[in-house]
Amino acid sequence: MGSRNGDHDAGHLRAKRVGIDTYLEPVAYMHADCPVCRSEGFEAQTRIKLTSGSISIIATLNVVRSAFLAIDEAGLSEAAWRSLGVRDGDRVEVSHPEPLESFSSVRGKIYGRAMSEAGFRGVIRDVVAGRYSNIELAAFITACAGDRLSSAETVALTRAMVAAGECLAWPDRIVVDKHCVGGLPGNRTTPIVVAIVCAAGLTMPKTSSRAITSPAGTADAMETLAPVDLDLRAMRRVVEKEGGCVVWGGAMGLSPADDILIRVERPLDFDSDGQLAASVLSKKIAAGSTHVVIDIPVGPTAKVRSADQAERLSARLIEIGAAFGLTVRTIQTDGLQPVGRGIGPALEARDVVAVLTQEPRAPADLRDRAVLLAGAIFEMGGHAPQGGGAATALEALESGAAWAKFQAICEAQGGLRTPPLASHRRDFLSSAAGRVASIDNRKLARIAKFAGAAAAPAAGLDLHLRLGQEIARGEPIFTLHAETPGELEYAWRYAELHAGAISMAPL
Amino acid sequence: MGSRNGDHDAGHLRAKRVGIDTYLEPVAYMHADCPVCRSEGFEAQTRIKLTSGSISIIATLNVVRSAFLAIDEAGLSEAAWRSLGVRDGDRVEVSHPEPLESFSSVRGKIYGRAMSEAGFRGVIRDVVAGRYSNIELAAFITACAGDRLSSAETVALTRAMVAAGECLAWPDRIVVDKHCVGGLPGNRTTPIVVAIVCAAGLTMPKTSSRAITSPAGTADAMETLAPVDLDLRAMRRVVEKEGGCVVWGGAMGLSPADDILIRVERPLDFDSDGQLAASVLSKKIAAGSTHVVIDIPVGPTAKVRSADQAERLSARLIEIGAAFGLTVRTIQTDGLQPVGRGIGPALEARDVVAVLTQEPRAPADLRDRAVLLAGAIFEMGGHAPQGGGAATALEALESGAAWAKFQAICEAQGGLRTPPLASHRRDFLSSAAGRVASIDNRKLARIAKFAGAAAAPAAGLDLHLRLGQEIARGEPIFTLHAETPGELEYAWRYAELHAGAISMAPL
Repeated sequence: MGSRNGDHDAGHLRAKRVGIDTYLEPVAYMHADCPVCRSEGFEAQTRIKLTSGSISIIATLNVVRSAFLAIDEAGLSEAAWRSLGVRDGDRVEVSHPEPLESFSSVRGKIYGRAMSEAGFRGVIRDVVAGRYSNIELAAFITACAGDRLSSAETVALTRAMVAAGECLAWPDRIVVDKHCVGGLPGNRTTPIVVAIVCAAGLTMPKTSSRAITSPAGTADAMETLAPVDLDLRAMRRVVEKEGGCVVWGGAMGLSPADDILIRVERPLDFDSDGQLAASVLSKKIAAGSTHVVIDIPVGPTAKVRSADQAERLSARLIEIGAAFGLTVRTIQTDGLQPVGRGIGPALEARDVVAVLTQEPRAPADLRDRAVLLAGAIFEMGGHAPQGGGAATALEALESGAAWAKFQAICEAQGGLRTPPLASHRRDFLSSAAGRVASIDNRKLARIAKFAGAAAAPAAGLDLHLRLGQEIARGEPIFTLHAETPGELEYAWRYAELHAGAISMAPL
Repeated sequence: MGSRNGDHDAGHLRAKRVGIDTYLEPVAYMHADCPVCRSEGFEAQTRIKLTSGSISIIATLNVVRSAFLAIDEAGLSEAAWRSLGVRDGDRVEVSHPEPLESFSSVRGKIYGRAMSEAGFRGVIRDVVAGRYSNIELAAFITACAGDRLSSAETVALTRAMVAAGECLAWPDRIVVDKHCVGGLPGNRTTPIVVAIVCAAGLTMPKTSSRAITSPAGTADAMETLAPVDLDLRAMRRVVEKEGGCVVWGGAMGLSPADDILIRVERPLDFDSDGQLAASVLSKKIAAGSTHVVIDIPVGPTAKVRSADQAERLSARLIEIGAAFGLTVRTIQTDGLQPVGRGIGPALEARDVVAVLTQEPRAPADLRDRAVLLAGAIFEMGGHAPQGGGAATALEALESGAAWAKFQAICEAQGGLRTPPLASHRRDFLSSAAGRVASIDNRKLARIAKFAGAAAAPAAGLDLHLRLGQEIARGEPIFTLHAETPGELEYAWRYAELHAGAISMAPL
């Protein structure tokens, strides 16, 4: 063919922030009559490359046929705007992206071939660079789901996920961590565990997440007690001073692929042991942990639904951890009902403080779980003999040492504060006498979300009963907390419609 | 729990067409401060249910933080707007969709369980109802890709796809059809085949597609010769009168799930025999065909890349067809280079007419293929002995009967017309003498698309050489056709940059 060199195939447009939140998927908006759009043959759903200065991102194109965009503008969704780092009117170069070479290993996996370490590395690198569309992410996740990842593949995936982000290093020989596989509202043991184990001199630099689909993440609850939005440097200062912290991990860049994969895994709701192990452990390895205790709540409305499933997952976590020199201990816990009383950031934080300060009304189940987990950490870290960890943990709690350590950590993070109390509250009463037969964790979580949690930190609900408890007609089942009358009303109506969320057996 | 009945959990907004084309995925836009959005706990990417009158659709939510939407408006993407059938300002009810029960069979499939007929029926019903997000569609497609669909599952999927749409019935005992597995530019045999077999008295009610990712679909090319956008009734009239037609199938509602699955399959580019068989055959079964010839072009840059792959696909097509009483014959054809000279709707239509009218310059390869396929149909339909079909077909062509029939069909569809000629044309010259060693079908297709095909019907390119042909320096390789100077220039530059699209061996 002809050999003359042409200019490269790109067009230029003016950046415009259109204020559309597409969650994490970058979307670009171009007018149907935009010359670049026409000449490049771009259509709705085309994947396009946007370049500004040295930064390039890949976005999905939506074609606009109305007047909110001029024909020489490239509208950017919030995710695209953030990633590209432009200002309104900046020149943006639009072109066809390079082919997604790494996807050929995903195709191979679909045809039954094992994925190599290089294959995973290529995929994860492109995922972190935002080059995978939601469709491609879903295909990758599905190709690896079920029992399709061997141990070697899970190790390779974990290693690729760690390598794609930042890694923390600590001077200590033993750095402990904990994780909960999730799905249980109110299970806010982390701040208590950190306080107990750091009080005893162990190092626990805890990074936590915010709520994605739940009514509160540990970072959301902790934020009602102290600042959590620390950068790496500030976090290091806290850990050097107090031996531990409870901060938001989102800004640390640890295993960033995980955050991207999770947004597609959640709606699909696959319980894939390999992916879960890679997700959990890549964060812990990147955080520099050496010993991790993993809480696996088991129950019909928890994430893990049977003891069998918990055992398979546990074996996988221990095996993959070992491949990275990470000692993992798993603990199956009761996942039949929420933990503590509060569901929602401030309400859970209040329970945490109640346990630490040994208030008489402190929820015993939350305290017992925290003691169990902290005890396991003591045993792993050599701070207590096997079987003696719980006693050591309880001692740290009862002596007031844990509470003192927690206050010190909060001060180091920027100052201890009092969780807010919602301005609108209403008791949801029992319409009949009975004994509590079952509690649907998912529905209760939804009620708390409808009341405004986690976006409104004070919102959520306080649960007044436990499984097996007898209740009279007209007694409060839970108290709704909301920041607006509308949200209170809305959560209330949802609760009325889903009477089965808490089922009663006749007395 | 409480037993008082509440109102049901829905809010109301005013519909607004925002003019954003998200291709087939319905998207709804709501303001971040919209009371419904807040009280329902809706966030970006939430799947929401929109109801107007008796019609409900499921859409993906994008949250808007700018002024182009009022807080009581529900903005609708073009796909959502079309499906919901509303006018600006109409009251739209917004609520949480029912859980997607059918997805549990997809999860089962991912865990290695076979999908039942009821499972496929549930999935396909929900797919057609627009209840699957792109992520869920990608997971379903991936779960069934590779070699994961057994024959029984492929039959079940095909049956579910047929059942989800309209079905045509014809009085004739034999109703023939043809299909090309695709990937070969210019392979526009369909109008010629229809003319030949209908001239001999067979019934061939052909529904064709428009281009999705190619520079022309059969419906696009045919539309430059006659109207193709007929409804079912008009199509029936044409077939009753002339024995056949070449119309756009999109409005017929045949296997509508196929159109939705394809939009996710294309970008993933999985070559799954089971899904391909279900896709092709569900359309043919729904169209009421009894005998189908399937053209499988084989070549490194065609859809099917090896004879092995073609044979596996062929066996699958024949087997699945048989389960529905559909006789399938497959023909492997040369997929090494484009067919005919034109690539683009009008240029391909011109080649079709040249073959039918037996112009001296008519492309022999296009004629020979059409004769081969029509011959196979004659043999299947009992209109010619085995091995004698091609002669019968050639006779219909050379006698002028096929051309007469084609003109009659065009008249019946609304009137024969002359394909347009592009206003901007430019020869792309060879920079050196040589012999054509290879042709990249995909790159040539892209050049034609950049020139404006298929949106601009006259756009595309005319290829002046074939594999093995010798060419002197300065001779034209192809002629670009475009409707605007910009598109001509753009396609030209792309062609220059991709000199490898047509590779030359030294003489």
